[in-house]
Amino acid sequence: MTLIDTTIRRIHPIPLALDDAIKRHINDLTKPVGSLGQLEEAGFRYARIRQQVIPDMPVKRLYTFAADHGVVEEGVSAFPGEVTKQMVSNMVNGGAAINVFGRHVGCDVRIVDIGVNGDLSEIGGLIHRKIRHGTGNMVSGPAMHPDEMLAALQVGVELADEAAQDGVTLMGTGEMGIGNTTASAALMHVLLPCALDGIIGRGTGIDDAGLQRKRTAIAAAVKRHGLTTNKGDEDPLKTLSTVGGLEIAGLAGLILGSAAHRIAILIDGFISSAAALVACRLCPSIADYLFFSHLSAERGHRTFLKEMGAKPLLDLGFRLGEGTGAALSMSLIDAAVKMMREMATFSSAGVSGEVNSVDEGAA
Amino acid sequence: MTLIDTTIRRIHPIPLALDDAIKRHINDLTKPVGSLGQLEEAGFRYARIRQQVIPDMPVKRLYTFAADHGVVEEGVSAFPGEVTKQMVSNMVNGGAAINVFGRHVGCDVRIVDIGVNGDLSEIGGLIHRKIRHGTGNMVSGPAMHPDEMLAALQVGVELADEAAQDGVTLMGTGEMGIGNTTASAALMHVLLPCALDGIIGRGTGIDDAGLQRKRTAIAAAVKRHGLTTNKGDEDPLKTLSTVGGLEIAGLAGLILGSAAHRIAILIDGFISSAAALVACRLCPSIADYLFFSHLSAERGHRTFLKEMGAKPLLDLGFRLGEGTGAALSMSLIDAAVKMMREMATFSSAGVSGEVNSVDEGAA
Repeated sequence: MTLIDTTIRRIHPIPLALDDAIKRHINDLTKPVGSLGQLEEAGFRYARIRQQVIPDMPVKRLYTFAADHGVVEEGVSAFPGEVTKQMVSNMVNGGAAINVFGRHVGCDVRIVDIGVNGDLSEIGGLIHRKIRHGTGNMVSGPAMHPDEMLAALQVGVELADEAAQDGVTLMGTGEMGIGNTTASAALMHVLLPCALDGIIGRGTGIDDAGLQRKRTAIAAAVKRHGLTTNKGDEDPLKTLSTVGGLEIAGLAGLILGSAAHRIAILIDGFISSAAALVACRLCPSIADYLFFSHLSAERGHRTFLKEMGAKPLLDLGFRLGEGTGAALSMSLIDAAVKMMREMATFSSAGVSGEVNSVDEGAA
Repeated sequence: MTLIDTTIRRIHPIPLALDDAIKRHINDLTKPVGSLGQLEEAGFRYARIRQQVIPDMPVKRLYTFAADHGVVEEGVSAFPGEVTKQMVSNMVNGGAAINVFGRHVGCDVRIVDIGVNGDLSEIGGLIHRKIRHGTGNMVSGPAMHPDEMLAALQVGVELADEAAQDGVTLMGTGEMGIGNTTASAALMHVLLPCALDGIIGRGTGIDDAGLQRKRTAIAAAVKRHGLTTNKGDEDPLKTLSTVGGLEIAGLAGLILGSAAHRIAILIDGFISSAAALVACRLCPSIADYLFFSHLSAERGHRTFLKEMGAKPLLDLGFRLGEGTGAALSMSLIDAAVKMMREMATFSSAGVSGEVNSVDEGAA
């Protein structure tokens, strides 16, 4: 566990020293105080992560981790397992939604094979960090060996190190893996104090019978591995290795590693949130570094966000993954930073301040 | 009323002929059907407005109409009236939030003086179409003469004509006017079947005493001008001239004129929505051309959107106006169009389709 301990020791709570100066700057911009709502809050949070009153423009990157899941044997997905491999090719060729949105917002999108079930070694433009050919079926055994889980976490930490060296300041998370809403629902069911019914959902669009198979598979896996549920206090690493996924472990490592470099992190949807949950359980001060990009249509995401006390930036009914929500919301973080960099201030523009305002009491 | 009648006669319901082809194209993109939620819907609606299965990239423009309001005499705003003029200067100098966001999304932002109380004739880079120096106080008389209202509507129609000639295909609405949430609340109270308490809000941040003054002023104006409330069937033009605003009339004209040219229209927040409501009452088929950009923090906006059956693209707690929400959400329309233009299709990318899906019934 040395790698994880070392990484966690590098993560610090954000200093409070600049908070007042950042708030003062935002409140001096030519608009009524608070009138850009959540965008002002995002700008404030980004500035304090970066420890700059007027932050430099974000340098953006997003890693999409791809891996397969043994649990698809249980009939838990609307798509066959080979789609993971096909979609990786599509992403490397630039034809997937994440490529389109990455280009749209000016984000460098990189695809990582961390556990696809198939030989992708001939595919150029792919980051080859395969740990194994998909996880084992959580119903009949652990998803992965603890050493494999640690190796996957390490991939994420190392990619964060590389990104930091390249000057990245805003990281997006993404994933592709047929079956991974099942692994994520299992993780959330165990690591949150929530019943399975509030978390399980239709993933890419499974029917009622498939949803029942998903429920049965998760319940069986949780029982088999002796995981405590409804309390949220189970060991996160034990949970990750027994019912998690290789891409989820990779993302958890990426999140921890990014925070260690004071890189702000945009969490995509349901699966990325499961990885963020693992990271938060390992190191609670991670929360200060996280932005939640969108409310996924996957049912459990609302439950998760409520538990985290977080309001995401977008709510467009996305349920695709890949990092699509994270990429699109990067444009909003950029807008928040430009607000802080480019707007005139009340004093510089000669604009009068407020009278009769709520802050100042009755006039 | 010739101009309005002429413009309305140029607005046509959108033909249905391409709908199936557009849907088929969106469903053939390499993602589970519907998994990009509201973005798919936005792409579909934009494509049918433009009558192109795979639409060209939008050409974007936004007009911010500035005007003053006589009703500020009643103490209904947190800011003094002279702020309208000061903020127009700030916008022309590129220092306001709308300038920053316009640059961010690649939208041409133009500022129109349609009724600012003050001489702005020396300001370059401003579109000079002043009708009068602010409206009259609705409590003591009509906001404007019907001829002034028609002149303001005509400004909007003419600017839409100009935009169409310049190749604009996506129009944003914006406004600046101290006191204009009062005029907008009055319009919505009369033109929607809704009580005043569900519509009136704090604008730029008025205190409780100011909110009470706002309520009293609107109630007095509605009574004075003999407007029917709680039914939503009052004459929209009578309402606009007695309790509306010059910028609201200009925006209503811009909306009608844009639809006449099959330009998609992104409605900003509360005040732009009041203009959209007037336009819809004059020509119900306008609704097909409208996108609602964001849910304003102004209380009545939720009431309005519910009445319209619309879900906006963003919900970030904005209450600034200027067109800021419309500008930011233009980036989402661009993303939707790029999705349709740049994503690979299932057949072209060799990706397998769905099994066990909801659409296909139980497996």
